[in-house]
Amino acid sequence: MSRNIEALEETLGYRFKDKQLIIEALTHKSYKQPYDNERLEFLGDAVLDLIVGEYLFHKFKKSDEGKLSKIRASLVNETGFDKLARSLNLGEYIFLSNAEENNGGRDKPSLLSNAFEAVIGAIYLEAGLQKVQSIAIKLIEKNHKEISLDSLFSDYKTTLQELTQARFGITPEYKVVASRGPDHQKEFEVAVFIEDKEYARSCGKSKKIAQQEAAKQAVEMLNKGDASE
Amino acid sequence: MSRNIEALEETLGYRFKDKQLIIEALTHKSYKQPYDNERLEFLGDAVLDLIVGEYLFHKFKKSDEGKLSKIRASLVNETGFDKLARSLNLGEYIFLSNAEENNGGRDKPSLLSNAFEAVIGAIYLEAGLQKVQSIAIKLIEKNHKEISLDSLFSDYKTTLQELTQARFGITPEYKVVASRGPDHQKEFEVAVFIEDKEYARSCGKSKKIAQQEAAKQAVEMLNKGDASE
Repeated sequence: MSRNIEALEETLGYRFKDKQLIIEALTHKSYKQPYDNERLEFLGDAVLDLIVGEYLFHKFKKSDEGKLSKIRASLVNETGFDKLARSLNLGEYIFLSNAEENNGGRDKPSLLSNAFEAVIGAIYLEAGLQKVQSIAIKLIEKNHKEISLDSLFSDYKTTLQELTQARFGITPEYKVVASRGPDHQKEFEVAVFIEDKEYARSCGKSKKIAQQEAAKQAVEMLNKGDASE
Repeated sequence: MSRNIEALEETLGYRFKDKQLIIEALTHKSYKQPYDNERLEFLGDAVLDLIVGEYLFHKFKKSDEGKLSKIRASLVNETGFDKLARSLNLGEYIFLSNAEENNGGRDKPSLLSNAFEAVIGAIYLEAGLQKVQSIAIKLIEKNHKEISLDSLFSDYKTTLQELTQARFGITPEYKVVASRGPDHQKEFEVAVFIEDKEYARSCGKSKKIAQQEAAKQAVEMLNKGDASE
């Protein structure tokens, strides 16, 4: 099977000298080769932790370690990397077994996220930290319009909508299922539905807070579903 | 209070251009300054994860991701960094409050490990990855005579002995408290005592395996004790 890896290199803004390296980064373990992308994923994971950590260190000069960790955790995770992988159409280039292919492998967040980490690991190996830093930061800034602690929370609703649209072609629905307490101290209970199935419910001091917390839980459930497949 | 930071720089093999940077890396939050070492620790933590990850990636070319993760986890943790910090006499240079000083702060593994990460973060910021890589790898190779999956296990006994000697001036004692099963399938239960107090017990197919597992648990208990102080 041949893939137009040059198109991917074009999108990445990086041309590999060692073509075997990018092939390894794109090879899922199901593809039964003497190599797969798990070692490069191991490396890329650490590379991304440092790149994002340093980026936030400089961007938020007044934030303490706890805040930096929280913001990083919101970017450096399967959902975040899945998003970056999709922006590169990485799924098209992955080498996987027919069984995994038929199982929707090209569209699985875990698989896409791992391949993204592996590609970053491969660029790091060949071109060094500075090069891979500029590539990764460009991607992150393009795909996360606002990076801040305040925007984290609201990101869950956006993330969930992107996820359900990609996967089911629909947007999630939020319903207030209960409200309690006196007016000045009201609490809302909100449930989130995807295709009329309730995925999560959560309480909060405002509908917005409850929606976002419910969205967060739904995102985690959807992603966990992938991992266990 | 003045400290001979030049002596530390000598040991590190690195002279800081920005002296404020190393001072920040050595400042515990108890010392009530407008800065402390927690942001640099955040950065250094990621730097060390990458340095050690890449080191193992190249050293163990045939090992899969799971094995690499395990070996890294055995090096990149509080006990491991505490050991490296002590090899630099880092405790002598840390700025902390009188209260923390009287509380044995200079000798706490958590405090030492954090300061070590912060120093690595500071060198990275000023001198870049390559420089800090060579410093960290030299330190790790000097302090971990054998880095491999096989040696991990036996390291726990060594680590525990170093810990109890530094802290209590004694070596731990291991006693076989039970052995079960037929000769060809015997299982041993071993308990580890420090100052006649039992700290942990564990079973294994050989006395050695049981000892090492018990040592591991004791190390974790001793370190947890520090964190909660």
